[in-house]
Amino acid sequence: MSGVWGNKVKYSIFGESHGSGIGIVIDGLPPGIKLDFDVLRSEMNRRKPGSSNITTSRKEEDQYEIVSGLFNDYTTGAPFCAFIQNTSQRSGDYEQQRNYFRPSHADYTAYVKSNGFNDYRGGGHFSGRLTAPIVFAGAVAKQLLASSKINIFSHILSIGSEKDISFMDIDISELNLTSLKQSEFPTIKTASGDEMKKIITSVKANGDSIGGVIECAAVNLPVGIGAPFFDSLESTLSHLVFSIPGVKGIEFGDGFEISTKKGSEANDQYYICDRSIKTMTNHNGGILGGLSTGMPLIFKAAFKPTPSIATEQSTVNIHSMEDSKISVIGRHDPCIVPRAIPVIEAVTAMAILEHIR
Amino acid sequence: MSGVWGNKVKYSIFGESHGSGIGIVIDGLPPGIKLDFDVLRSEMNRRKPGSSNITTSRKEEDQYEIVSGLFNDYTTGAPFCAFIQNTSQRSGDYEQQRNYFRPSHADYTAYVKSNGFNDYRGGGHFSGRLTAPIVFAGAVAKQLLASSKINIFSHILSIGSEKDISFMDIDISELNLTSLKQSEFPTIKTASGDEMKKIITSVKANGDSIGGVIECAAVNLPVGIGAPFFDSLESTLSHLVFSIPGVKGIEFGDGFEISTKKGSEANDQYYICDRSIKTMTNHNGGILGGLSTGMPLIFKAAFKPTPSIATEQSTVNIHSMEDSKISVIGRHDPCIVPRAIPVIEAVTAMAILEHIR
Amino acid sequence: MSGVWGNKVKYSIFGESHGSGIGIVIDGLPPGIKLDFDVLRSEMNRRKPGSSNITTSRKEEDQYEIVSGLFNDYTTGAPFCAFIQNTSQRSGDYEQQRNYFRPSHADYTAYVKSNGFNDYRGGGHFSGRLTAPIVFAGAVAKQLLASSKINIFSHILSIGSEKDISFMDIDISELNLTSLKQSEFPTIKTASGDEMKKIITSVKANGDSIGGVIECAAVNLPVGIGAPFFDSLESTLSHLVFSIPGVKGIEFGDGFEISTKKGSEANDQYYICDRSIKTMTNHNGGILGGLSTGMPLIFKAAFKPTPSIATEQSTVNIHSMEDSKISVIGRHDPCIVPRAIPVIEAVTAMAILEHIR
Amino acid sequence: MSGVWGNKVKYSIFGESHGSGIGIVIDGLPPGIKLDFDVLRSEMNRRKPGSSNITTSRKEEDQYEIVSGLFNDYTTGAPFCAFIQNTSQRSGDYEQQRNYFRPSHADYTAYVKSNGFNDYRGGGHFSGRLTAPIVFAGAVAKQLLASSKINIFSHILSIGSEKDISFMDIDISELNLTSLKQSEFPTIKTASGDEMKKIITSVKANGDSIGGVIECAAVNLPVGIGAPFFDSLESTLSHLVFSIPGVKGIEFGDGFEISTKKGSEANDQYYICDRSIKTMTNHNGGILGGLSTGMPLIFKAAFKPTPSIATEQSTVNIHSMEDSKISVIGRHDPCIVPRAIPVIEAVTAMAILEHIR
Repeated sequence: MSGVWGNKVKYSIFGESHGSGIGIVIDGLPPGIKLDFDVLRSEMNRRKPGSSNITTSRKEEDQYEIVSGLFNDYTTGAPFCAFIQNTSQRSGDYEQQRNYFRPSHADYTAYVKSNGFNDYRGGGHFSGRLTAPIVFAGAVAKQLLASSKINIFSHILSIGSEKDISFMDIDISELNLTSLKQSEFPTIKTASGDEMKKIITSVKANGDSIGGVIECAAVNLPVGIGAPFFDSLESTLSHLVFSIPGVKGIEFGDGFEISTKKGSEANDQYYICDRSIKTMTNHNGGILGGLSTGMPLIFKAAFKPTPSIATEQSTVNIHSMEDSKISVIGRHDPCIVPRAIPVIEAVTAMAILEHIR
Repeated sequence: MSGVWGNKVKYSIFGESHGSGIGIVIDGLPPGIKLDFDVLRSEMNRRKPGSSNITTSRKEEDQYEIVSGLFNDYTTGAPFCAFIQNTSQRSGDYEQQRNYFRPSHADYTAYVKSNGFNDYRGGGHFSGRLTAPIVFAGAVAKQLLASSKINIFSHILSIGSEKDISFMDIDISELNLTSLKQSEFPTIKTASGDEMKKIITSVKANGDSIGGVIECAAVNLPVGIGAPFFDSLESTLSHLVFSIPGVKGIEFGDGFEISTKKGSEANDQYYICDRSIKTMTNHNGGILGGLSTGMPLIFKAAFKPTPSIATEQSTVNIHSMEDSKISVIGRHDPCIVPRAIPVIEAVTAMAILEHIR
Repeated sequence: MSGVWGNKVKYSIFGESHGSGIGIVIDGLPPGIKLDFDVLRSEMNRRKPGSSNITTSRKEEDQYEIVSGLFNDYTTGAPFCAFIQNTSQRSGDYEQQRNYFRPSHADYTAYVKSNGFNDYRGGGHFSGRLTAPIVFAGAVAKQLLASSKINIFSHILSIGSEKDISFMDIDISELNLTSLKQSEFPTIKTASGDEMKKIITSVKANGDSIGGVIECAAVNLPVGIGAPFFDSLESTLSHLVFSIPGVKGIEFGDGFEISTKKGSEANDQYYICDRSIKTMTNHNGGILGGLSTGMPLIFKAAFKPTPSIATEQSTVNIHSMEDSKISVIGRHDPCIVPRAIPVIEAVTAMAILEHIR
Repeated sequence: MSGVWGNKVKYSIFGESHGSGIGIVIDGLPPGIKLDFDVLRSEMNRRKPGSSNITTSRKEEDQYEIVSGLFNDYTTGAPFCAFIQNTSQRSGDYEQQRNYFRPSHADYTAYVKSNGFNDYRGGGHFSGRLTAPIVFAGAVAKQLLASSKINIFSHILSIGSEKDISFMDIDISELNLTSLKQSEFPTIKTASGDEMKKIITSVKANGDSIGGVIECAAVNLPVGIGAPFFDSLESTLSHLVFSIPGVKGIEFGDGFEISTKKGSEANDQYYICDRSIKTMTNHNGGILGGLSTGMPLIFKAAFKPTPSIATEQSTVNIHSMEDSKISVIGRHDPCIVPRAIPVIEAVTAMAILEHIR
């Protein structure tokens, strides 16, 4: 299991849901960056549970401590470690967690990978809680990117079958980014957002859960970052996006739809605009040959429904190796999409930073 | 630009479309593997152009030479280098290639990335021709995986709007794999394949091109390979799949469709079967928590239509910085999907090998 | 500054001398290893200051906390993080530390590298205190190696001009390893050790310091681990040994002396012994072609005298950019060699583990 | 066996002594560097055998071909591959090479590592011939460093017991670098060089060989490159220097001698000189805390005598597992030191480039 990612900047993630805490070491930050703690706090809050009735009622303050690499509020260039102590571990039914695999969770695969030595409490190292240090790292990365005017934002494109309007279909420069970034439930069309919330409330009432899609954009990328083949911009981004629990698909620009098109429909033709080169369309989502085109980088990530549902399901008892039943009771998000928004943006920032420095 | 990928086994790709040749160094192969040259040749042939009227009429023999790492037909464990000499570079209209960016190709982004120093002839290092060494590396990786009974196969799921039946909807153990693997145009339903070929022939006749989707499966993976977070099995696979020119989307299992489902519909419930643990369904495509579940690993990759089309398009002249027009004349594949089949399988083998050794 | 090392097992080090603490993330440990906490504690104690009158009188308990990756005393395979809180930071004369570079310390180079943003208190991230997490990681690595019967041990070969007998000149299988490993001041000849201690006591009395050489051996290595060229066993070992502050030289086997010899004197000739292949001599220190020969791996590492001395020295005031004088007052080791013994063994274990798994 | 090194620039080495050729892929070069082919040729010639009566009489033209990454004499930024065809493989006594391990060569360890599948002809991948692509890569790296005014040069410090004057004991800015760089046998004192040649001629006449020491300096390094701990400048340099066959020791600055000194003798005190900070002495060889000080970086590398000697030695027959005798007949260098000079400089350039870009 490798929990280290990156080349120029390296991220080492660690911790378990019900251990002493979780954290991340960020290695390779430049010295002399003044961190804006309000931005860090605000990003952490976007992921924090318990802030509305459509997320889990679990309270986690996610109070981080910066352990190293910061001196007088500036980065020193030495390894930067942030640590979040675990405080709210309600121990739960550990006996159940030890013996019964929750369907569509990592319980079974983690058990086999570790030969049965994994910390099964609350998913252990496989817990979605580990996205908190990722959001932290992303918030730092965003601050570095901001100095290059690179801006990352996203919205909930769909929950179940209810869809918001896509970034691909509007002029995203006219979006109210402050509103998107500060919303607990960012959508472009308010009516869509309201409908989505209803869907979530409804599945929650039924002890069920629901999936959704997040769409993310990065603007003001310089032209030509990325690489052909193994380190394409899509490769780097998808690598990190799929490191987020629950993601099952990603597409750039027109994505799967582009496969139904003809070249004459799908190609992005060039023109000169203000002495620089632009494309008339952006079917490729801002990436050609693995490199940024200067047009907005746009991608969608599909999230599966929260696996933890109260509805009774079939499972097995690992110790007796007998068929069994399970109801996953507890304070679970009926839909992880809203809280995944800052995680998607975080890994986007990390991926771009890797290519840009 | 990093053309090196991998940790346990490292792959270094090099070469340009119209330079002296293309190749790959595979570092970290175990010693004592007897290579089956028929398999290598057969895989290379699957990608080779000119074998049917729906691919380019360009002839490239792709005659590889094994430069190092092999002794008396067995791997030695030393770096293994395969080289393919370029023989069929019809020089083409270099003046056009130097001054005019082909829409939806990498010409523009490669130009900017290299400050204008890129080899623009035939796309240079960004050429799809570089997938030949990848197919070679994949053929080697497949041979290593075969000793663990791991089998990789794929088919054309769609061309334009014509769809074959999905691996997700059938019992893939009943597929005729030999037929799939030897077909130049592998589909499950023959009628779909026929229709797809008609579509390709038709767009070709109009100087246009078309996209499509490849679906790939890997069976007999052991349970528990992969990693949570940064090195999830999806992360590794998507990283490599997006290194293939023309891919714009990837999804595992139900993919984007899973985002419309409820947990009660999407969860894969467990049961005991022959003293081992199976899931009743496989919505997650054989991966949970970034680790293999032992169920078939299934994913789809969306390819855009070949950007090279005869139809006139708008572009710019980079030297005069004026708007201009371009028709990309030449022997181009009207659809890259059929020839991309062995490339998808190759990177799948490389990704699995990375996790399995 | 990269504080991450390793491929199969990755180590991320972090922390500063006078920050909140120091630690290490060890990524890639196999699951199911039962850690022996007595061994861990004992290794940490060997490095701990204040245990005799020839080391600093500073007290650091180096009480580590295992933050992640351990569950019910067994490794889980998830990232393993150990953290050591800083407790004994006597703040010292920070104003001096901020403005005056201590000769032969990293103060000046760290200042320039970080554009003046480094944490200068007690050397910050450059402090020798960071070797505590390295000793911890090494103690874990040693436990993994022990299961392969690999044993690592060392002694003080020289302090100043006083020399102990070399591992190269005796039958090391007859050494009393327990005595070497438990001694605070391990030498083979007691008389040499006594003389060395006198030298240290003497320089300490004069406000001065002294250097020395550590010799280390690893036995029971399997034949053939390592690699030719870039990842030779010597490359890996020297890489890590030079990461220890104060090391200025390393040599394997006969080392520099072999350069004065003829081939007929320096070659290690083969013979059969108990059906296995041995060499009659071990001038190459157990490594040929970058690979282990099965003979004891033996190397020496040269340490410079502690740079912190009370004797007045010339330095500069970085803020006024004027020549100045400095006396480094404080509780410093007059010789770092005794406390460096477990550090040398730790990195040796880490290096071998990288090649052996 | 990993033959890939580097992070920002990655080098993949491949090939065998008696295979079709040897080469290197250099990944990550910046685009737009105009290569000076005279410099490349001249560096290759410095390593080339057969140029004097004290090296092997074997002729290898080492005619390289640049396979990729270069267009119109400028680097493109795409992977850069150089290939050297093998032309002069006199097949030799393969039967002897297959069955009898040459003492102090890698024959035995390579055999075990590869489970007997190694290419044993002329040492195969373990041959010193593989240093030719390293010299090539170093020549490219030197050209990149030259634009930062960084200059690397070296001399033969000793052969057997005959010593030249050390860089540590003179003002190296007064050296005639052109003379050092163009000499086939660079020494500072001509008389020492003459004496060394006599020693080599004498051992050669006796069917024996001799070792020696190379001293290398790099000047005009900026202050502060390198890293504390795992990626110290000494770590990187020693890693690469020990990848050169035959090296058994390395020391920086005073090296092993510094271990005999007191702090008051060994510390490098600071003073202001022309508004910049210098040290009065350079006992630390230009590195403090793993970072460059701006003073000349100086190190010594000890080479063992060529293992191939005509003198009869004991060995074993691997197939019969019986004790035996061997005389290594052939055209061998009686001393590898003169030809190793450009190799030492090459890896020095590669190491510095890794830290400087």
